[in-house]
Amino acid sequence: MINVAVAGYGYWGPNLVRNIQDTGEACVVACCDASQDRLKQVSAKYPSVTTTTRYEDLLKNPAIDAIAIATPVATHYQFARKALENGKHVLLEKPATSSTAEAEKLVDLAEKHKLTFMVDHTFIYTGAVRKMKEVVEQGDLGELYYLDSVRINLGLFQRDVNVLWDLAPHDIAILEHLVKEKPVSVCATGACHVGNGHENVAYLTVYYDSGLIAHFHNNWLSPVKVRTMLVGGSKKTIHYDDMEVSEKIKIYDRGVDIVSSEGVHEARVSYRLGDMWAPRLDPTEALRLMAAEFADCIRTGRRSITDGISGLNVVRILEASEMSIKHRGKEIRL
Amino acid sequence: MINVAVAGYGYWGPNLVRNIQDTGEACVVACCDASQDRLKQVSAKYPSVTTTTRYEDLLKNPAIDAIAIATPVATHYQFARKALENGKHVLLEKPATSSTAEAEKLVDLAEKHKLTFMVDHTFIYTGAVRKMKEVVEQGDLGELYYLDSVRINLGLFQRDVNVLWDLAPHDIAILEHLVKEKPVSVCATGACHVGNGHENVAYLTVYYDSGLIAHFHNNWLSPVKVRTMLVGGSKKTIHYDDMEVSEKIKIYDRGVDIVSSEGVHEARVSYRLGDMWAPRLDPTEALRLMAAEFADCIRTGRRSITDGISGLNVVRILEASEMSIKHRGKEIRL
Amino acid sequence: MINVAVAGYGYWGPNLVRNIQDTGEACVVACCDASQDRLKQVSAKYPSVTTTTRYEDLLKNPAIDAIAIATPVATHYQFARKALENGKHVLLEKPATSSTAEAEKLVDLAEKHKLTFMVDHTFIYTGAVRKMKEVVEQGDLGELYYLDSVRINLGLFQRDVNVLWDLAPHDIAILEHLVKEKPVSVCATGACHVGNGHENVAYLTVYYDSGLIAHFHNNWLSPVKVRTMLVGGSKKTIHYDDMEVSEKIKIYDRGVDIVSSEGVHEARVSYRLGDMWAPRLDPTEALRLMAAEFADCIRTGRRSITDGISGLNVVRILEASEMSIKHRGKEIRL
Amino acid sequence: MINVAVAGYGYWGPNLVRNIQDTGEACVVACCDASQDRLKQVSAKYPSVTTTTRYEDLLKNPAIDAIAIATPVATHYQFARKALENGKHVLLEKPATSSTAEAEKLVDLAEKHKLTFMVDHTFIYTGAVRKMKEVVEQGDLGELYYLDSVRINLGLFQRDVNVLWDLAPHDIAILEHLVKEKPVSVCATGACHVGNGHENVAYLTVYYDSGLIAHFHNNWLSPVKVRTMLVGGSKKTIHYDDMEVSEKIKIYDRGVDIVSSEGVHEARVSYRLGDMWAPRLDPTEALRLMAAEFADCIRTGRRSITDGISGLNVVRILEASEMSIKHRGKEIRL
Repeated sequence: MINVAVAGYGYWGPNLVRNIQDTGEACVVACCDASQDRLKQVSAKYPSVTTTTRYEDLLKNPAIDAIAIATPVATHYQFARKALENGKHVLLEKPATSSTAEAEKLVDLAEKHKLTFMVDHTFIYTGAVRKMKEVVEQGDLGELYYLDSVRINLGLFQRDVNVLWDLAPHDIAILEHLVKEKPVSVCATGACHVGNGHENVAYLTVYYDSGLIAHFHNNWLSPVKVRTMLVGGSKKTIHYDDMEVSEKIKIYDRGVDIVSSEGVHEARVSYRLGDMWAPRLDPTEALRLMAAEFADCIRTGRRSITDGISGLNVVRILEASEMSIKHRGKEIRL
Repeated sequence: MINVAVAGYGYWGPNLVRNIQDTGEACVVACCDASQDRLKQVSAKYPSVTTTTRYEDLLKNPAIDAIAIATPVATHYQFARKALENGKHVLLEKPATSSTAEAEKLVDLAEKHKLTFMVDHTFIYTGAVRKMKEVVEQGDLGELYYLDSVRINLGLFQRDVNVLWDLAPHDIAILEHLVKEKPVSVCATGACHVGNGHENVAYLTVYYDSGLIAHFHNNWLSPVKVRTMLVGGSKKTIHYDDMEVSEKIKIYDRGVDIVSSEGVHEARVSYRLGDMWAPRLDPTEALRLMAAEFADCIRTGRRSITDGISGLNVVRILEASEMSIKHRGKEIRL
Repeated sequence: MINVAVAGYGYWGPNLVRNIQDTGEACVVACCDASQDRLKQVSAKYPSVTTTTRYEDLLKNPAIDAIAIATPVATHYQFARKALENGKHVLLEKPATSSTAEAEKLVDLAEKHKLTFMVDHTFIYTGAVRKMKEVVEQGDLGELYYLDSVRINLGLFQRDVNVLWDLAPHDIAILEHLVKEKPVSVCATGACHVGNGHENVAYLTVYYDSGLIAHFHNNWLSPVKVRTMLVGGSKKTIHYDDMEVSEKIKIYDRGVDIVSSEGVHEARVSYRLGDMWAPRLDPTEALRLMAAEFADCIRTGRRSITDGISGLNVVRILEASEMSIKHRGKEIRL
Repeated sequence: MINVAVAGYGYWGPNLVRNIQDTGEACVVACCDASQDRLKQVSAKYPSVTTTTRYEDLLKNPAIDAIAIATPVATHYQFARKALENGKHVLLEKPATSSTAEAEKLVDLAEKHKLTFMVDHTFIYTGAVRKMKEVVEQGDLGELYYLDSVRINLGLFQRDVNVLWDLAPHDIAILEHLVKEKPVSVCATGACHVGNGHENVAYLTVYYDSGLIAHFHNNWLSPVKVRTMLVGGSKKTIHYDDMEVSEKIKIYDRGVDIVSSEGVHEARVSYRLGDMWAPRLDPTEALRLMAAEFADCIRTGRRSITDGISGLNVVRILEASEMSIKHRGKEIRL
């Protein structure tokens, strides 16, 4: 049994505790939070869990194998660094860190200490994304052409970050998971109208050398809630609609074929119209699978599918997009 | 009665002829096309219409008051210039011209000769866009924050232009029609995967000094057909879905309010949840209204709501976006 | 080449003429209508078509092989009877006749004279229904359990019939086409609120000995337009939504299985959750295929898939449903 | 503070306990269930709640003011009768009882003992139905013409009842709530294909003297989940779609008007096309409002909007529909 401590018992912490307990391979033995009120909630629900307001107590406790960190992003780096330096495996909420440099240091530290360092990119563990991964891996889509993601709705404004740092990590993590090719640069645009001085509407393009292009649209002001992703290839296209109840993933055997091409200006294309297929998706709760993955990676020493490097890759794109957005769409190399 | 000649009887020409005939104020007296086959179709359907393969015949004919030009875009400028120089009013299909310089010259020429010069931005005449205009004009949306347009589907590839030049004119014309403020710059990104060497997936951001941001997503490869536009303001938001049969326009009284703001980092926002309203739209065929507008502008000498300047404004954004896309999102001043 | 006369050039007649001309195997040589105005329209569009206001002229004309009848339903029987008696093949608009007795006489007459007698159940020729037929024939659905049809919208009130006679023929014809088993009885309910004294909201149940049940909901008052059909079986279920643009037919591999059944009251069932599949549908215009079928049946002497007996079967259900509705749901044997 | 006991801690019991606790006016003091395991769950979560396997313990306990009964339907009558006879207020899960006779006796008993007797028709307390009620009460719909309800999905089969007894109570309770007129008769049809000998597909028509007609479609076999209700009147129509996330209620100002009517066969109607309006709905949890209603009715002695008589009215329709269905749609007077 792996003993886990949870740092931060706010919005997401309770979900983490519940799902870690449910793995059967790991259990929560301690919880740390700055608020005594929240710690009381932990004690009431899980009498066996030790509580503390001092993070150092977790570090010093030799019975603790791993720390799951669900604190504000700005604190991730310090908490994770100390955990790794004290020999604890680390699970970080998304986004992993506030900067690429921080994420790189954590990756190195985990490597050096031979510890599991994983990021909770929960969507990667959903039935929908696992099915997308399977379809892409099998080559069903053919050559990848574009990934287009829209995640918009009336949003809880974050105090200290723009809408990309808040919403895009979900979708960039999916991009990172589906596409093995390394992105080369980003362009981002956006605007701020309400509130915190950070963009509440933003658009991000990610370029790849192969010609693949990925685009993300995030918006905190939209009265309409949209969560869609199109992944288009030379053969088929996936349409992922997370607002659908029972058919989140649709695979279209429809597209455009090059019929003849005697020269750039003479290309002829024809439509290919075919079936659409909505595969059954595994309904297992994503967070439960993520918690099981954390336990399994610690136990076996294998790399997680959402390891520190995937967290780093996501942060690298976010950091570059923030720079691009400040320079009105200037291309930033990754 | 205004006598109109139609140049180009391909895909759109027959629609123009039919709708000009239906105005009651104008009638088609001549038709010019390079193809004898097409001209035979005209004669069969409209025995009274004179046909010719030589554009000059139209210019020389004193009985012709106006020329409606539905030829390939590359030829628009020469045909329109000659028409204006020969004292004919001009209706041009969208996009008006291939370049800003051409459009400017035509605007000047029409001004100089006191002729009507209008562009067929058909969507402006739809019940949906007329309702949007009314709502925006009344100030119902409050301060405009963003306009987000998506127009994607499996598309007929154009030989000589990218997907923005083909699909975006519809939506940029709507932007131009709804927003009086002048845009200041654009950033565009895109990629080409199939066919003609021109982008078949593209993203365009248009900046305004007020903070308003407009974004356009066009894609010729998508198996899913989407035609939506969000126009968000400080008070209300319009959602326009052109694929809806009977409720294309929905107006949401939902948004985010600033509750208190003692400093950038202390902003608090609250949700405003309210009703949604889908107004009845006038089902009159847009092209019929456009044809009537052309006749009326010629008769009265007033400016059209889709005059040459609006056509120029659309071309200016397209031209800049093409430059930006070639430089990977570089901001181009307008 | 089969020479066809069209009787009735109102709402549907022009579509018939156009599609018969397009078959290549038949051509329209004459047209009969009570209105001179309408006949002028025919002459203008098809100069070679003879026109007349007297139906007898068609009967006497030996050059006419077949008559397509698109007149009001009340006149179908007399017109069709005379045509068959004069050796003309007959195509009748739906519903075939106003009564079962009439339809039976026409079937007998056609049989006796060895003439093609066909009913224009257009929906049977749509890509959607042809795909449904294919799926049902292959046994993919397993044992048929239920067919549920909804066809509602703001409707043009018919002067002389209720909403079932107007809208249900489409869907009952589909039922008749998909299900080989003979229905045994019907129950129908309904109400009249506006206008003509005939029901404008109606519900019809059709019973089968196997346990299969079919149900039809028709409504002329609904502001919402719905055109759906569910065909459920022991293995799979078809969902047909005619308002969908590109995925009208969805096949669900989802249902309920009997896991154990030690007695009626001990049955246990489990869910079967599986994929959904939306096959590509042939977009050929249904009416064109119907016209080709008419020509082909005349040429080869084979039975049509929408022959007089299918028309009779539909009328039998309509007649019984009208009797049931007058007696508040009383079961009427067929 | 009103002391409530909950009988039955199965599927619904825990929801009842939680919501009664949350009212602030009532609290759960005891819980009775046949299963010790379930009672342990109660004790773990609510240490102050007394548990027992004997219903009599509740009856004898003078500290208990009211009993909420969430046991199988077949037991409702006996449990409720004893409660009322022992001076306890009663809240019954839906459907109230297995027969009209039982429901009538309970209504009489409550009347005689001056006790609150209420049925948990939860949907009546949803924001959607409360808004429907408001719109109907204001007369916005005009004269009521029809109510059409569809509630279908893959369902958990009930051992001892058909699909109408299981699913229709929700919608019949809404009918009962919206329409003051008394229904006069019902016709029902249905079929059983899987499992328990009871209908798993059923259709129910309810007649009113005014011409109003109500119809219910329930189906346990449908792979598609549909929960819609149309309430059509002479002026406006409500469309209620419970599967919609944010716009469950849409009000259409669209319909058919009688333009002239010189006789039954000369009626002319015209379309009225107008706006659609989706009002904001109160998101308060329905069960919480129901629990508060129970407490308030006990405290003040007023009649509940879902009192025993409404429960009786629903059962009366269900009982008659079951008789009709056994006689293949025979009209059963209420």
